[in-house]
Amino acid sequence: MDASMAAMDPTTWLLLCRTVRFGDTDAAGVIHFHQLLRWCHEAWEESLERFGISAAEIFPAGGPPGSSEATAPPVALPIVHCSADFRRPLVCGDPLTLQLQPERLDPSSFEVRTTVLRGDELVAQGLIRHVAIGLEDRRRCGLPEPLQRWLEASALGGGVRPL
Amino acid sequence: MDASMAAMDPTTWLLLCRTVRFGDTDAAGVIHFHQLLRWCHEAWEESLERFGISAAEIFPAGGPPGSSEATAPPVALPIVHCSADFRRPLVCGDPLTLQLQPERLDPSSFEVRTTVLRGDELVAQGLIRHVAIGLEDRRRCGLPEPLQRWLEASALGGGVRPL
Amino acid sequence: MDASMAAMDPTTWLLLCRTVRFGDTDAAGVIHFHQLLRWCHEAWEESLERFGISAAEIFPAGGPPGSSEATAPPVALPIVHCSADFRRPLVCGDPLTLQLQPERLDPSSFEVRTTVLRGDELVAQGLIRHVAIGLEDRRRCGLPEPLQRWLEASALGGGVRPL
Amino acid sequence: MDASMAAMDPTTWLLLCRTVRFGDTDAAGVIHFHQLLRWCHEAWEESLERFGISAAEIFPAGGPPGSSEATAPPVALPIVHCSADFRRPLVCGDPLTLQLQPERLDPSSFEVRTTVLRGDELVAQGLIRHVAIGLEDRRRCGLPEPLQRWLEASALGGGVRPL
Repeated sequence: MDASMAAMDPTTWLLLCRTVRFGDTDAAGVIHFHQLLRWCHEAWEESLERFGISAAEIFPAGGPPGSSEATAPPVALPIVHCSADFRRPLVCGDPLTLQLQPERLDPSSFEVRTTVLRGDELVAQGLIRHVAIGLEDRRRCGLPEPLQRWLEASALGGGVRPL
Repeated sequence: MDASMAAMDPTTWLLLCRTVRFGDTDAAGVIHFHQLLRWCHEAWEESLERFGISAAEIFPAGGPPGSSEATAPPVALPIVHCSADFRRPLVCGDPLTLQLQPERLDPSSFEVRTTVLRGDELVAQGLIRHVAIGLEDRRRCGLPEPLQRWLEASALGGGVRPL
Repeated sequence: MDASMAAMDPTTWLLLCRTVRFGDTDAAGVIHFHQLLRWCHEAWEESLERFGISAAEIFPAGGPPGSSEATAPPVALPIVHCSADFRRPLVCGDPLTLQLQPERLDPSSFEVRTTVLRGDELVAQGLIRHVAIGLEDRRRCGLPEPLQRWLEASALGGGVRPL
Repeated sequence: MDASMAAMDPTTWLLLCRTVRFGDTDAAGVIHFHQLLRWCHEAWEESLERFGISAAEIFPAGGPPGSSEATAPPVALPIVHCSADFRRPLVCGDPLTLQLQPERLDPSSFEVRTTVLRGDELVAQGLIRHVAIGLEDRRRCGLPEPLQRWLEASALGGGVRPL
């Protein structure tokens, strides 16, 4: 995707849809809490994909360490903090909108706030904070260039309208 | 969705897409095996939704037993058997096609076979078998009517072409 | 368990062990972040069990809403907030100690802070906050009596020594 | 653990305990099916650990591919097949016994059958089949030596009594 065009309509990569599935629920009949954080991470991955960044640019893959097929980008992005707030019970089949608000915190870290809506109603919020670490020396380093583009395009476009 | 129309093009509800996400993988760099069975169940739920059956017609929801908001269809569909075969390693970002082949086994049971493809390559298969049980007496009973329509439409249309 | 005795040695129910399993990890070779919150909830459940509170006193169970076997305590304890901090990467096989610090926040809510140690090293922390809601009217209400006993015994004993 | 001694009492590593946790359930009030296969894998890991085999001998760990901390045994053990049968609904708090029956199938593959009991009642069964693959050439190879010892000790001791 062309970044300048994307910046003009961030809704194409910052506004995602998801339906609550049966396996997301527990015996109280509503979603089991930590599944929300799974959704937030998957929404971030989907956002990068829609923006035009391939998984291989960001995530290690392809086989166990040492295997000839293993690949990993030179920068890892471990999560150092996450949180979630739950406002309304969510049940199987609920159609949701996930609205992402990425923010660069400093040259080596960023966070993504995810607002979850059911229709116009705010039902939950999640937050995931990452730092960039060099794979070799395990020290903090600059964010990978594709991720910087995604953060900038999100900011330039004003993001999607917060509630 | 109009069932007769749907029967003419079952690809709209029996052929689904999914991308492997980072949380689906384990330290061997490929998907952790039981996630495949989660995908199969979610694909079944998405298929019903696309066919026009609401989650509330099939799945209990809305709150814990006894709560005023709790709802449950009169027939439960517990899983009695599942299996999966893994042919190729799947890594984060892999775009997959899930091809569903539902089959009614007898008046009170059915199974859904899910074939997972990456491009033209068969990478995995999953199978989930359900029985219908009356919620009150916990005895086997006929399949819910909406599910029967979905099974018939899938069979009528010849389903999607098996490999 | 006799509560007064338990209060004298809270380590029997507030200090738990857990080993990182392969399915807890992702392709970066370390635990996938939201699994930590799953551990925190399971540790809370194990703590109640060790203290002598049965699952049926706290959690709904026994079948879908409406079924004759369904049971649910009159008070639900939905989670309204959770958070986690990650200090060190955790790999498959790591033996961990989970140290729980429960706290009553007001008559209808409490939180459990879980400190995760590998040997003497602080590796992660998690927090889960619950509110008590009457099953019938869905309004905030007092905490269930068994939970109050658990909270009091934890406080009386001074809990386990914080880091 | 000394293998000859272990062979005399395989119950110490082939008979494990587990309690159903709240997050294992879904809105039908019973365990969500694929969690059973997670338990089977975790039971296999716990069995190896109790037998005296460290996770690092069997599972890759320690960081993403390419990182200096990454380690991986020279042989990977991907799962090629799994299945499960569900006989009785399992609810939150149910105390279970998991009885493992490992079997070497040929020089490069083995499977582990897990029988799940609640008291004397057979409630579920799971099966996981692995093949050994050389990490470098990705071709089938002999099973790792520690795993062979575990398989032999399990067979020598007659295993735990099947139902």
